[in-house]
Amino acid sequence: MRQLVECALNFSEGRRPEVIAAVVGAASGVRVLDVSSDADHNRTVVTFLGPPPAVEEAALAIARQAVALLDLRQHRGAHPRMGAVDVIPFVPISGVTLDECVALARHLGERIATELGVPVYLYAAAASAPHRRLLADIRRGEFEGLAAKMQDPAWQPDCGAAVPHPTAGAVAVGARPYLVAFNVNLGTDDLGIARRIAKAVRARDGGLANVQALGVALEARGLVQVSMNLLDPFATPLYRVFEAVRSEAARYGVPIVGSEVVGLLPLETIVEAARYYLRLEGFAVRQVLEARLLEE
Amino acid sequence: MRQLVECALNFSEGRRPEVIAAVVGAASGVRVLDVSSDADHNRTVVTFLGPPPAVEEAALAIARQAVALLDLRQHRGAHPRMGAVDVIPFVPISGVTLDECVALARHLGERIATELGVPVYLYAAAASAPHRRLLADIRRGEFEGLAAKMQDPAWQPDCGAAVPHPTAGAVAVGARPYLVAFNVNLGTDDLGIARRIAKAVRARDGGLANVQALGVALEARGLVQVSMNLLDPFATPLYRVFEAVRSEAARYGVPIVGSEVVGLLPLETIVEAARYYLRLEGFAVRQVLEARLLEE
Repeated sequence: MRQLVECALNFSEGRRPEVIAAVVGAASGVRVLDVSSDADHNRTVVTFLGPPPAVEEAALAIARQAVALLDLRQHRGAHPRMGAVDVIPFVPISGVTLDECVALARHLGERIATELGVPVYLYAAAASAPHRRLLADIRRGEFEGLAAKMQDPAWQPDCGAAVPHPTAGAVAVGARPYLVAFNVNLGTDDLGIARRIAKAVRARDGGLANVQALGVALEARGLVQVSMNLLDPFATPLYRVFEAVRSEAARYGVPIVGSEVVGLLPLETIVEAARYYLRLEGFAVRQVLEARLLEE
Repeated sequence: MRQLVECALNFSEGRRPEVIAAVVGAASGVRVLDVSSDADHNRTVVTFLGPPPAVEEAALAIARQAVALLDLRQHRGAHPRMGAVDVIPFVPISGVTLDECVALARHLGERIATELGVPVYLYAAAASAPHRRLLADIRRGEFEGLAAKMQDPAWQPDCGAAVPHPTAGAVAVGARPYLVAFNVNLGTDDLGIARRIAKAVRARDGGLANVQALGVALEARGLVQVSMNLLDPFATPLYRVFEAVRSEAARYGVPIVGSEVVGLLPLETIVEAARYYLRLEGFAVRQVLEARLLEE
């Protein structure tokens, strides 16, 4: 199976199209899946996919260009930020473990510190301590508060000196599982039922691991929905979540009338659903014809 | 969705590895999925995948090399054959219709006749008359009988003169749907049950269109199996066949204990299973991350 990693890099420019194009254009050797800029946030997320070494090189090239072109001393926007290139998460898609993405994050972190002179915090699965797992905690105080924050021994950067880059601040580099937004629609307009099912299936209240869930009303359709984030669709697959919702809905006599995936899915997660429902024995992802085209 | 066509080209050499390598090596610009040579048949099947124009060029290049290197006057083998390059079927995999593969077959047929001087019969979905649909009928009489057969107005070739190429004979070029070998294992050792289910689900006896089925015993496992060919898995999807077997098995109180796909599947057929079982609304093949890598 081909090794594939996704990166959803965030940088602090969402208004000047020519600057955004120049930063994104620094990436090569990867497939750019999406570029989303927000003028109010003054921020862009560029999502790209490729083999691990290519993704690391592309992330470094984009970071280098962002450091060269952006000056955080002039930057204003609604979204919290601490650097010109602000967040770099690596996400395993196929043939790669989360631990390998952690190693990739550490390797890139060292290179950003030494080659670009920008200090790096490792976050999420790559964090060096529990208090550094959450991006919001690392970023608290933002660019303007970085110099003072780095004096606190608890907030020394993981790579590089404890001094922010004068114009580019610092960057958070990390690794996390792929996230799938999966919504299941119920054949009722009773929001209470959607809320009770959401409570039953989500991790926080004793349901499935790696599942966040809320009950919401789809007023235009006269339906309610269990709206979910699957925080690790390899460990907790779509079919298991779907069957848990079906099982909980059955006690109210409510049918599932449809579902939706918002955004993209790794091929393995689709294959796993087919394996479960068709009871396939020994079916490998590389038995999908198109997967053969992606092999080296 | 990227346009992909598969070609499973048959040529009349299965014994001399250096000749086989030279013929197969003529292909470029496509992904070779498999090369299977049989010494008794004295025949090789090379299976390759790519965009329609690339697949046509690769098929022509292989045919040109087979015509240059093989001499049917010297050829002996257990498998019937009428040409150096014997059969060229085009199979739609993604973003391409069967009719487009028919057009591809006609186009290649004309080029083989004019560029290589080898007459061509169009077969299967590309056939110009009902009596020419089956390969066995076209090939009856084999290489040695071709000159006489072509004198019969019913067996004039579709492209080129009614004279066999002196060393390369003639070739059958056609288009057909993708074929999936799909077997479902039942939790019983009663072969009669597998046979009755096979009869219930196959097209010939009033079951599902595009399905051939047999009941067979898996003696080592103490199980029986419904062994099937799905002759058009886009029109008659895996999930529908699986559910038909499940429904027929239920009347005997027999569970399905597993299933297997022999060989490769187009991505669309896996996605269609996930759409059905997860009740996905509006899920496109290009929502599979890996499919994005295959786009131009």
